[in-house]
Amino acid sequence: MILKNISYLVTQNFDRQILENIDVKISNNEISAIGRNLSTRNEEVLDCSDKVVMPGLINAHTHVSMTLLRGISDDLELNDWLHDVIFPAEEKLGPEDAYVGAKLGCLEMLKSGTTTFNDMYDHMDQVAEAVDETGMRAVLSRGVLDVDGKGEKRVNEAVDFAIDYNDHGRITPGFAPHAVYTASSDVLTNLKEFAEDRDTVYHIHVSETRSEVEDFVKENYATPLQHLDNLDLVDDNLIAAHCVWMMDEEKDMMEEKGGTVVHNPAANLKLGSGIADIPDFLDRGINVALGTDGVASNNNLNLFEEAKLAGLLHKRDSPTEITAQEILDMMTINGAKALGMEDEIGSVEIGKKADLITINLNSEEMQPVHGKEGLISNIIFAFDGKVEDVVVDGDLVVKESKHSSVDKKDVLEGVEEKKGKF
Amino acid sequence: MILKNISYLVTQNFDRQILENIDVKISNNEISAIGRNLSTRNEEVLDCSDKVVMPGLINAHTHVSMTLLRGISDDLELNDWLHDVIFPAEEKLGPEDAYVGAKLGCLEMLKSGTTTFNDMYDHMDQVAEAVDETGMRAVLSRGVLDVDGKGEKRVNEAVDFAIDYNDHGRITPGFAPHAVYTASSDVLTNLKEFAEDRDTVYHIHVSETRSEVEDFVKENYATPLQHLDNLDLVDDNLIAAHCVWMMDEEKDMMEEKGGTVVHNPAANLKLGSGIADIPDFLDRGINVALGTDGVASNNNLNLFEEAKLAGLLHKRDSPTEITAQEILDMMTINGAKALGMEDEIGSVEIGKKADLITINLNSEEMQPVHGKEGLISNIIFAFDGKVEDVVVDGDLVVKESKHSSVDKKDVLEGVEEKKGKF
Repeated sequence: MILKNISYLVTQNFDRQILENIDVKISNNEISAIGRNLSTRNEEVLDCSDKVVMPGLINAHTHVSMTLLRGISDDLELNDWLHDVIFPAEEKLGPEDAYVGAKLGCLEMLKSGTTTFNDMYDHMDQVAEAVDETGMRAVLSRGVLDVDGKGEKRVNEAVDFAIDYNDHGRITPGFAPHAVYTASSDVLTNLKEFAEDRDTVYHIHVSETRSEVEDFVKENYATPLQHLDNLDLVDDNLIAAHCVWMMDEEKDMMEEKGGTVVHNPAANLKLGSGIADIPDFLDRGINVALGTDGVASNNNLNLFEEAKLAGLLHKRDSPTEITAQEILDMMTINGAKALGMEDEIGSVEIGKKADLITINLNSEEMQPVHGKEGLISNIIFAFDGKVEDVVVDGDLVVKESKHSSVDKKDVLEGVEEKKGKF
Repeated sequence: MILKNISYLVTQNFDRQILENIDVKISNNEISAIGRNLSTRNEEVLDCSDKVVMPGLINAHTHVSMTLLRGISDDLELNDWLHDVIFPAEEKLGPEDAYVGAKLGCLEMLKSGTTTFNDMYDHMDQVAEAVDETGMRAVLSRGVLDVDGKGEKRVNEAVDFAIDYNDHGRITPGFAPHAVYTASSDVLTNLKEFAEDRDTVYHIHVSETRSEVEDFVKENYATPLQHLDNLDLVDDNLIAAHCVWMMDEEKDMMEEKGGTVVHNPAANLKLGSGIADIPDFLDRGINVALGTDGVASNNNLNLFEEAKLAGLLHKRDSPTEITAQEILDMMTINGAKALGMEDEIGSVEIGKKADLITINLNSEEMQPVHGKEGLISNIIFAFDGKVEDVVVDGDLVVKESKHSSVDKKDVLEGVEEKKGKF
């Protein structure tokens, strides 16, 4: 396939080049050429005149099987929300519900330009099925809590899942203890061993709410990251979601030992958790990626919306605190780094996987384009997120804003059948 | 015209009724019937099965002729941004540029569900032309500064404009001093007299930045609202944009005397101005409407995005601080109240103007719908803003997300020609 006559190719390569009037050739599932006037002989052609082409987005923290719980409740205090609404709903959420929700969530992510997501939750087999069928790419980890004596069982499920999906081209198994306050030291270190064996992600919620951190420190005489570091769990494979209430000493540790902070501004605001100090993490050179969290606390999976929110939020005291380019990095190449996949995705370069999205430049909010900086500004601060085409692993899964991999009607019928349950 | 088989009609009437499986009939430019199985004889039919129908949105504070300046600069301190970028660009922005930008902005607003906007700026004749041609509704005021000795001239232009557009069905002239720190007491009171004569809006920027308020208080020994009140300018026709740094005494005044606060959360964050205490204004029973401000500081005119941002932002300390329904009110009926048009627009009721929008329920992010509360939640927190159809004043100006009133291609060509100027 050849993406022809691209108006602007936002490569996100090392030099953050933006190329104009250019073609991109895809061979099998990889980008095989970038240049002017590439030959289209025997090639499927996607006309990209009046379009931006850029790397598919990476949603670095979500729980896609919760998608059926969208809009189930918004205006409650966190504890009431969890105990009166979410926990009871999750009790009812069986594997079939997770599958239907995950499929809806995958379709939503594709339509809004996300080609890869990083997920932790229950029902990972069903999520994997949805990912497989919709043509997405994902890093999936069976989330492990052990507050109820079932930690061991969940660790085994996580390992089984990793074995089952060892060889899937688009699915990478990871390991994910829920949090330091819900997983014992044994579970934390066991999961790390499995993650190290496979050199894969170690995905965990860290310092989301103030009270969670205060309670943990009181009981354990250590901050969450100190606790993780005491167990030797802080390295480049660490993906720490939220990091809203992280102290300077904890940031120092990440600065020294590695790991990624995933920023989920919508969920952090919506649940009243607070605002992570992202400019500080960036100043320290810590890798920061972007996530939507689950829809129950967002309430969508549109990473472009999340990008604008991040931009606005961190400019609140001064407009120089964060730039549009930094946010674009968070949702592309930094996400790839978080997942240990920076050689495969996150930028448009020869030899990388063909995960690409296109944006229609004739959409009102994308005009005018004031040069390359203006283009990045429009992508982050003006674009509403409805992309035009999506290629994942070389396959055109969305064309002209319509799914070509899956019959959406079937998925919506499944959702309609299931929703009364919650 | 009949909107047939509406899945959910969000009326925004006094009881905030949501009706299911219902039809809405439009006769001339008004809503003439709401009911089941209305006869479609001799009527154009718009099929609304699997659609939400709701009142067209009201953008209560913007500067649409600045639309050509979208993305021109993002990451500068407010003073550098104004003096190095915006003021020089505004110097170059002639009437023809304003016309082209306004037309692009009108098309963008329509596509994202806004049917009425409230504007103040220069070049109002050209904005009015764009409004007239695109089929929108607007309240337009020639903005008046008098820091350069040209205040009197601008007052005259404002009056001329009001006379010229006295009888336009969709355009209501208003009066708009720029701010207390840029308009003399004479200009402030003169404009108020004209506004009172016509019983129309008195639209002004109030307390947007901390330094602006501090400087004003130092020089005048009065807060901005105290100053307005000393001149007897605070009443129900006052539309005060921003109100980020308002003190309790000023809020007391509005509580007692009336007026509307327009919340522009994106622009206030993006320029580092701060966060208005909207829950406090709501608790006091002060009318609060929602605005996007101009695109140079947003960078789009999508009021649905603004709604989600407002919701998230005011939940940051506690999720109970603001509800989805309160935000929906801000963007519909409260906007109508602000404009003195609550008998004409802002809700779907018999006798009101037919300003309606539809949302496709088969869009992934709108599913599932957990009852009527879940529907409102999806509208505010999940929907991306790309509406399906738009009716203004009885005319179907957007159908299936495509403009039917204007050739978008012509507008985009005009934008392309003009953009190099800035």
